[in-house]
Amino acid sequence: MRPSQSAAPTFRAIDVIRKKRDEIELSQADIEGLVNAYTRGDIPDYQVSAWLMAVVLRGMSRAETAALTDAMLRSGEVLDLSAFPARKVDKHSTGGVGDKTSLVLAPLAAAAGVTVPMISGRGLGHTGGTLDKLEAIPGFNVNLPVAEFRRVLEVCGCAMIGQTPEIAPADRKLYALRDVTGTVESPYLICASIMSKKLAEGIDALVLDVKTGSGAFMKSERDAAFLAELMVETGERMGKQVVALITDMDQPLGNKIGNSLEVVEVLDVLRGAGPEDLRELCLELSGWMLHLGGISNSVAEGKQHSSQLISSGKALEKFRKMVELQGGDARVIDDAKRLPQSKHSLDVQAEKTGYLASMQCEQIGTACVILGGGRERKEDAVDPAVGIVLHKKVGDQVSAGEAIATIHYNGDARVGRARQLIVESCAIADSAPSTKRPLIHRVIQKSGGNS
Amino acid sequence: MRPSQSAAPTFRAIDVIRKKRDEIELSQADIEGLVNAYTRGDIPDYQVSAWLMAVVLRGMSRAETAALTDAMLRSGEVLDLSAFPARKVDKHSTGGVGDKTSLVLAPLAAAAGVTVPMISGRGLGHTGGTLDKLEAIPGFNVNLPVAEFRRVLEVCGCAMIGQTPEIAPADRKLYALRDVTGTVESPYLICASIMSKKLAEGIDALVLDVKTGSGAFMKSERDAAFLAELMVETGERMGKQVVALITDMDQPLGNKIGNSLEVVEVLDVLRGAGPEDLRELCLELSGWMLHLGGISNSVAEGKQHSSQLISSGKALEKFRKMVELQGGDARVIDDAKRLPQSKHSLDVQAEKTGYLASMQCEQIGTACVILGGGRERKEDAVDPAVGIVLHKKVGDQVSAGEAIATIHYNGDARVGRARQLIVESCAIADSAPSTKRPLIHRVIQKSGGNS
Repeated sequence: MRPSQSAAPTFRAIDVIRKKRDEIELSQADIEGLVNAYTRGDIPDYQVSAWLMAVVLRGMSRAETAALTDAMLRSGEVLDLSAFPARKVDKHSTGGVGDKTSLVLAPLAAAAGVTVPMISGRGLGHTGGTLDKLEAIPGFNVNLPVAEFRRVLEVCGCAMIGQTPEIAPADRKLYALRDVTGTVESPYLICASIMSKKLAEGIDALVLDVKTGSGAFMKSERDAAFLAELMVETGERMGKQVVALITDMDQPLGNKIGNSLEVVEVLDVLRGAGPEDLRELCLELSGWMLHLGGISNSVAEGKQHSSQLISSGKALEKFRKMVELQGGDARVIDDAKRLPQSKHSLDVQAEKTGYLASMQCEQIGTACVILGGGRERKEDAVDPAVGIVLHKKVGDQVSAGEAIATIHYNGDARVGRARQLIVESCAIADSAPSTKRPLIHRVIQKSGGNS
Repeated sequence: MRPSQSAAPTFRAIDVIRKKRDEIELSQADIEGLVNAYTRGDIPDYQVSAWLMAVVLRGMSRAETAALTDAMLRSGEVLDLSAFPARKVDKHSTGGVGDKTSLVLAPLAAAAGVTVPMISGRGLGHTGGTLDKLEAIPGFNVNLPVAEFRRVLEVCGCAMIGQTPEIAPADRKLYALRDVTGTVESPYLICASIMSKKLAEGIDALVLDVKTGSGAFMKSERDAAFLAELMVETGERMGKQVVALITDMDQPLGNKIGNSLEVVEVLDVLRGAGPEDLRELCLELSGWMLHLGGISNSVAEGKQHSSQLISSGKALEKFRKMVELQGGDARVIDDAKRLPQSKHSLDVQAEKTGYLASMQCEQIGTACVILGGGRERKEDAVDPAVGIVLHKKVGDQVSAGEAIATIHYNGDARVGRARQLIVESCAIADSAPSTKRPLIHRVIQKSGGNS
């Protein structure tokens, strides 16, 4: 209405805010202008937060989502791995409780000949993080400079590090602002955040593990599928092969939660043992990685090949190699006692006889955070030794007084609250649950292809 | 989802942002907390701008709007005029082109015995402002301290000043942020901004003049009526008598636009002359002020009484008194040449013969701004001498070459663009417009009462 603001000759944030507010589709130039100006520090937080809220409430078109992802990706360095002859494939999970598949998948896919340049995150809130799990291995260095990361990749075929300051700086700045302005919960912004970081890895293909259920960020399958479809289309628009598996997070994955404990379970799986759900999901995801990596002609063939790489010990040897190359104490592989151990343990007993009907999975994750195994704020330190071992999964029979779980802890002060949370999160019913949730809910591929 | 942010023991802005985002009604404590924390500087702009955008897109309930108005009102000083025996009544206009009724109404209603403590604003964008018009009178001081304001009110029954820093500081801070974050255009926020300032004047009743048409901020009658109804209900919830008139702003009000020129037209009306539309609107608004002020039993009686106060010269004498008390040169009243005069004038001629079918009223206002008579930015200075005199109103016959308007200007550089805008804004048709827009579209009173 009014002639408005100073007549800046170039980019005007206010115009982009108003367009989004008024449901006018933003151009690539609008979005690039905003992301670049914000990354440079040329526009203030208060304009960007108003725009973010407008995005949360108005949504974004597919073209806008791809433009935002692209602008964020190009705000920093994009790795050029074209010198590596093999196809570069990564896996990303939206996060859950007991989700340690990355530690299995990187060496497993690399053992098959795929190059896996994995850049991961830390745990926040009730979910665990790959970097925290790796750091449970004494000496393991997740902060490799890019040159060193390339060298490990070259020698070993896989490498696992944390985000470097050079990668997608726009995402770091935007995420910090979203965190304090109620603008985290938008599938469009979540998609752009995840995909900009993953595509900066210089990969050819990506397998997405989108969690759904009580321990996932997307509790409903509908929300999970919407985000998955958005990420698949965004990746495809940017010339990458992307598949998303909607997988179950209505109870923890595997039996162990907590950083040291999860490394133990990873080693079990790499030896062909470990809990069935975790083993099965690892094979499924690996099957997809091998298929997209051009190693196998189908997912089924990829799964079978992965299974053989476990039986033959090649996957475990790849893991050992990676640990050594990244400075970790590889002796933990044959002697798990070298991993940090908690001082105390406490059984959580079933209060009645019956069947474990359901678990409030987020609460189990929170119980682990309370023990010190996760962080409530970014700056919190993590205790690698603590955690929870589950002895029962949903559907199992339990007797009154039987141990459902064992808590591994170091500080008496917190164990009571953690125990209470676990007890509350486990519902025991008189009869077995009539239906079993599937491990893999759906697979989402190009052009909304569903299977 | 995550335990989130630092656990501040008291007010958490993020919770209020999320509630509004998720369409949960905010409590009075939520809104008070936000407004007070922001006014104190305890929460950053970027949180408030995200909240403002959520309000723009989610709207507010009547209770939320009243709570916001109340919190903004109580962020600063509320004048206590209870010592004045007469009822205190003010008028507020949402702004238009050639809208100079305040300068007529304050002395007119005061002459009838109403106390009129009027705190006004400056022009911004295409609309004029009461303070700029008053300052066209040499020496007139709109920056009286509160004690002096009370003294003028006591002696004269009316006083006209600008907003003081003590009144509704939350509005000043919020308005500045809205201006740069695309969050101006919300009826709820506009209502709270207007009503918080007006109710801080310590009034008993308020007459709102809500403009609609091409020169108004609310172009459609529907939007104007929505805002009017909101302000009436908000005022009533806060124990004040409030009426809103939806009045026409599809062409300028009266014939003169520009600060000095408008003072001349005000004096014409106070002498019983002047253009019919302006005279009629002043009597209507004054009728309501006298009625709500308890001076007359009906609006009709109030209009008649106002008419008599003009005929008898009492209204003009009250104006003279106020000008003197506020330091102005009262000689302008009998010698309009003492008001600032422009150096040059230029007639704008009709390009063809026919009827003036419509005027793009906002463009006429913008033409006056271009001449220097208004401001594009808050910090711009205003030239009181320049402006536009219209010789034709919508529906009038015009002949090719006849002057539609005369431009009064001081700088050659701008007159061409102003002339062009006026020409473009006037549509000349072969036949007279079939319908005439009414001057008063509707009256909106308590409980949505419409007449």
